[in-house]
Amino acid sequence: MNLELALRMCEAAVRQAVREGALISVAVVDAGGHLVAFQRMDGARISGPVLAPGKAHTAVAHHMPTADLAPLVLPGGELHGLAGDRYVCFGGGIPLGEPGDGRGVVGAVGVSGGTVGQDVACAEAAAALWEGA
Amino acid sequence: MNLELALRMCEAAVRQAVREGALISVAVVDAGGHLVAFQRMDGARISGPVLAPGKAHTAVAHHMPTADLAPLVLPGGELHGLAGDRYVCFGGGIPLGEPGDGRGVVGAVGVSGGTVGQDVACAEAAAALWEGA
Amino acid sequence: MNLELALRMCEAAVRQAVREGALISVAVVDAGGHLVAFQRMDGARISGPVLAPGKAHTAVAHHMPTADLAPLVLPGGELHGLAGDRYVCFGGGIPLGEPGDGRGVVGAVGVSGGTVGQDVACAEAAAALWEGA
Amino acid sequence: MNLELALRMCEAAVRQAVREGALISVAVVDAGGHLVAFQRMDGARISGPVLAPGKAHTAVAHHMPTADLAPLVLPGGELHGLAGDRYVCFGGGIPLGEPGDGRGVVGAVGVSGGTVGQDVACAEAAAALWEGA
Repeated sequence: MNLELALRMCEAAVRQAVREGALISVAVVDAGGHLVAFQRMDGARISGPVLAPGKAHTAVAHHMPTADLAPLVLPGGELHGLAGDRYVCFGGGIPLGEPGDGRGVVGAVGVSGGTVGQDVACAEAAAALWEGA
Repeated sequence: MNLELALRMCEAAVRQAVREGALISVAVVDAGGHLVAFQRMDGARISGPVLAPGKAHTAVAHHMPTADLAPLVLPGGELHGLAGDRYVCFGGGIPLGEPGDGRGVVGAVGVSGGTVGQDVACAEAAAALWEGA
Repeated sequence: MNLELALRMCEAAVRQAVREGALISVAVVDAGGHLVAFQRMDGARISGPVLAPGKAHTAVAHHMPTADLAPLVLPGGELHGLAGDRYVCFGGGIPLGEPGDGRGVVGAVGVSGGTVGQDVACAEAAAALWEGA
Repeated sequence: MNLELALRMCEAAVRQAVREGALISVAVVDAGGHLVAFQRMDGARISGPVLAPGKAHTAVAHHMPTADLAPLVLPGGELHGLAGDRYVCFGGGIPLGEPGDGRGVVGAVGVSGGTVGQDVACAEAAAALWEGA
């Protein structure tokens, strides 16, 4: 991950949010789960600075989209009870890269502020830049 | 948000609590979720100083009444697992203002101490002052 | 402690702050250190909702003004290292009542937002209501 | 505070860091201390995502540069013992606006990663945009 790409990812997420009619925050973290770039749209909720980095951190920590974690943390699910300081286990966080490829998981993007569906769409718009990079 | 209005909101909540036969705490926070005014009725629970500001903080952070958040955080709900330092996701917190209007969400009121229904009624009595302001 | 007296204490602190030219937050807590009333003046710092209740909590917890604690927590002082979730060990918190009198320590007032000297003056103005009650 | 200005402030801080030969993180927060924008330069320390927002939060919470807080929290200083979840009390955080002017303190910028002197220089470069806005 680098700042230049992270900024373009943030911009892509914000552009998608405008298309969705949503007000979002977007965070990009590196392979250590540490913030590289963050942007909050004017009027977006103050929960964004907590939830967007949290979704990104969770996605990189578990090597999976947070939307895929959501069913696993339900009562009876195999990760039920998963919780912690920076864990957010519903859709909007997407890891960048794959454990098995040459570079591994290099970071993640997290989006918060819209509906979960809108957040996922914005995060996917950002992640598409990585996949195309 | 300003102190004079926040105090009148607290008083309105307490008057409603008297009508409800409830003993409550009421908190008013600003757009950043920071406390502006707080009042705890004589005999009200010591959980009020935690829960009333928490409900207000949650309502302003998510731009919605905490009563509307309650079903979303159930197992299977789209925000299941939402949690954090000052999060209280059941009824009694009401945001003041709307993201889309000129001023945005300017704060919130939170009430705790009665039944959830009583807390909501008291918070609504306070919020009515904002809507009429 | 009761809400009616706590509100009058808050008002006395705010009046003193106006005289001092300071913008303050004031908190009154009960014998358990739990908030009874809180007011933040328009324009006062957002640290007030943390520091004013913290000073009041600390004053009631240690049965002494926080200004008297300050030298004790210095390196070499007998309480050096005193710290914790709601501890604030510089001036502005004043306990109400005495351990040895009939009612004991019944609560405390805490003020934050001005200089330490201004905060102490505002807290004393509030505490004077108790001593005269 | 708005995102467009916050991004220009981040860019100004990064440009100054290049001139200083430093690798920094920069954060801009709103009047509630909540993150609006954040950027970490390639190769900058992973402490930046904690310290830069912390300095910005502290500057807005206390209405003063964190460099001015540093001597106050020394043993014997009037705020000795000041601490908390998002408090960073050495140079690199600068508030934007003044309590007494029409808009009040509207946010802050925080920089971390270089020497304290470099961090301050980068934060000042960012804050200059506000003063000129």
